[in-house]
Amino acid sequence: MTIYNFAAGPATLPAPVLLEAQKDLVSFPGSGMSLLEMSHRSKPVQGMIESAEENIRALAGIPDNYHILFLQGGASAQFSMVPMNLLTPGGKADHLVTGNFANLALQDAQKVGDVRVAGSTADRNHDRVPTPDEMTLDPDADYVHFTGNNTIYGTEWPAEPEVGNVPLVGDLSSNIFSKPIDVSKYGLIYAGAQKNLGAAGVTLVLLRNDLLTRSPDTLPAMLNYNTHSKGHSAYNTPPVFSIYILGLVVKWLLDQGGLEKMAAQNEDKAKLLYDQLEASEFYRGHALQGNRSRMNVTFNLPNPELEAQFATEATVEGLVELKGHRSVGGIRASIYNAFPKEGVETLVSFMKEFERING
Amino acid sequence: MTIYNFAAGPATLPAPVLLEAQKDLVSFPGSGMSLLEMSHRSKPVQGMIESAEENIRALAGIPDNYHILFLQGGASAQFSMVPMNLLTPGGKADHLVTGNFANLALQDAQKVGDVRVAGSTADRNHDRVPTPDEMTLDPDADYVHFTGNNTIYGTEWPAEPEVGNVPLVGDLSSNIFSKPIDVSKYGLIYAGAQKNLGAAGVTLVLLRNDLLTRSPDTLPAMLNYNTHSKGHSAYNTPPVFSIYILGLVVKWLLDQGGLEKMAAQNEDKAKLLYDQLEASEFYRGHALQGNRSRMNVTFNLPNPELEAQFATEATVEGLVELKGHRSVGGIRASIYNAFPKEGVETLVSFMKEFERING
Repeated sequence: MTIYNFAAGPATLPAPVLLEAQKDLVSFPGSGMSLLEMSHRSKPVQGMIESAEENIRALAGIPDNYHILFLQGGASAQFSMVPMNLLTPGGKADHLVTGNFANLALQDAQKVGDVRVAGSTADRNHDRVPTPDEMTLDPDADYVHFTGNNTIYGTEWPAEPEVGNVPLVGDLSSNIFSKPIDVSKYGLIYAGAQKNLGAAGVTLVLLRNDLLTRSPDTLPAMLNYNTHSKGHSAYNTPPVFSIYILGLVVKWLLDQGGLEKMAAQNEDKAKLLYDQLEASEFYRGHALQGNRSRMNVTFNLPNPELEAQFATEATVEGLVELKGHRSVGGIRASIYNAFPKEGVETLVSFMKEFERING
Repeated sequence: MTIYNFAAGPATLPAPVLLEAQKDLVSFPGSGMSLLEMSHRSKPVQGMIESAEENIRALAGIPDNYHILFLQGGASAQFSMVPMNLLTPGGKADHLVTGNFANLALQDAQKVGDVRVAGSTADRNHDRVPTPDEMTLDPDADYVHFTGNNTIYGTEWPAEPEVGNVPLVGDLSSNIFSKPIDVSKYGLIYAGAQKNLGAAGVTLVLLRNDLLTRSPDTLPAMLNYNTHSKGHSAYNTPPVFSIYILGLVVKWLLDQGGLEKMAAQNEDKAKLLYDQLEASEFYRGHALQGNRSRMNVTFNLPNPELEAQFATEATVEGLVELKGHRSVGGIRASIYNAFPKEGVETLVSFMKEFERING
């Protein structure tokens, strides 16, 4: 039986990536050693990291004035590193709160400095992102922070919020490189790799180089972006294997035809599920049209018992990890870049049959 | 040709560990998926992490009042996390400075709070660790920090410094689990995994539970040890694959016969090299007898040109990564737990032959 893994992250990886990683694991080409035991300052490892960087730059058209950093600690570590580095003395920042991780980012940032909520959809259980009218952005803020896609609620910003000249900071952990991106709209982008980019253990950071001057000298080395940009992500031992997997996934994305192609595929996959939700009274989608996530499709059944039964029976059919996040319940189908269309089609068939029997 | 990898970290891993990791990479036993794409909250991954913890506890006899944490950012991230969490309001800490990483730990800690040097061997180019007479420990310090083994200079503390009732904090990145350890002597131990414990990307932290009360609530989540102890190392997505490799290495250490056995093997391997250094006028060991590292054997040849020639010719013979750290030069042979005795014997033969021709 084919297993389709709908986990929200770590999530499905492309099969060719796994096979190549397996082939190389004991002996990395040109070295006679495993990548796991090679010095991060050796030529093959340095070459692997540089190649990952070049491919990322090519894939997303990243301008020359942006650094590409491979850090550790996931998006959660960036929740405090961003304000530590980007808040100026006496400065303040605006956060847009659209879900659980947006809220955690806010809480950590408020521990670091003067950070306020410039828009929130908490009062409507985050069924969409704020409208322009609902945002009160301070033109003197040091930056605006938003979360591009909200995995738990299944919403996604259809486009970046308009923030004028204030640097935009995006947590794009759950939708990065799922469609074309204009990086020049951002001051900083960060993304844990384990959803659209690879395995856990590495965070991709894209940083406009003029912002590096803000980091105070009083920061400990590992918490200062300058340490990592100067050290080319190898100030200390980086998470070599996770960077390697990220590099293989980026190469795979290029081989697929790039971000325009991924956008079309992701649109297509999500539409299959949203069409099914719309065609049914039995299933109710959580996110409002216009702000629906192409990555995480969240929905409810008539009651929690049916939702539990749905997840259990789906698992038996090889459709695994469909239970919604413990904080909101319901069903969640995570269908990132590497998730195959056949898996979505199989889920739609299962949904129809489940409704026929239990509806 | 057999390659013997003398890199200081990431370093040689046990061949059975690499083969098992390769076998499981595409399909983890019992899941039908790769470990790289499985949710960190899934049963197989949770079970893998728990099993790694149990094996670590068994291997090193870790008392019940110590937490075992798997963190990110390497030892370098601990350089600031330790003072952030363990310094009390108005409190101070003592650092013992015995090499490069000890010095980096000091610099970061001094950015966080009132941290002073209670002993240093910088004036003698760190050819040994301080004697008891050379240490001025404050009995009211919040903790004493030391570095168990100094990879660059090739020195090692033969036993923990005597610190009375002050909690002892040890950076044991380069000699952890290379011999039996009495964890109860420590308040906190941290170790990047990529030398004696596995691959890069995970840091093992052993923490006495009474010290958790010191962490201030003002710390961002990821920088607070309480977050990770409450979350059982899965507050956010942990570096799953690196923890898995660490677990396999710990299992391998148990299979080898445990820490007494490793101590004997490591002693034996190091003795081969130190005996050769003593028998020769051509090679000069850097570390003084009594404080010599069993993990990193550092030595010089009559001049830098011969050292460069030595490293180059050794590489041709499959003895790779012998060049000393860029900050001190010379030759360094790193021979951690997983480094095979045959590799040391081959190096000794090479040294004899090189001296015969060039001496």
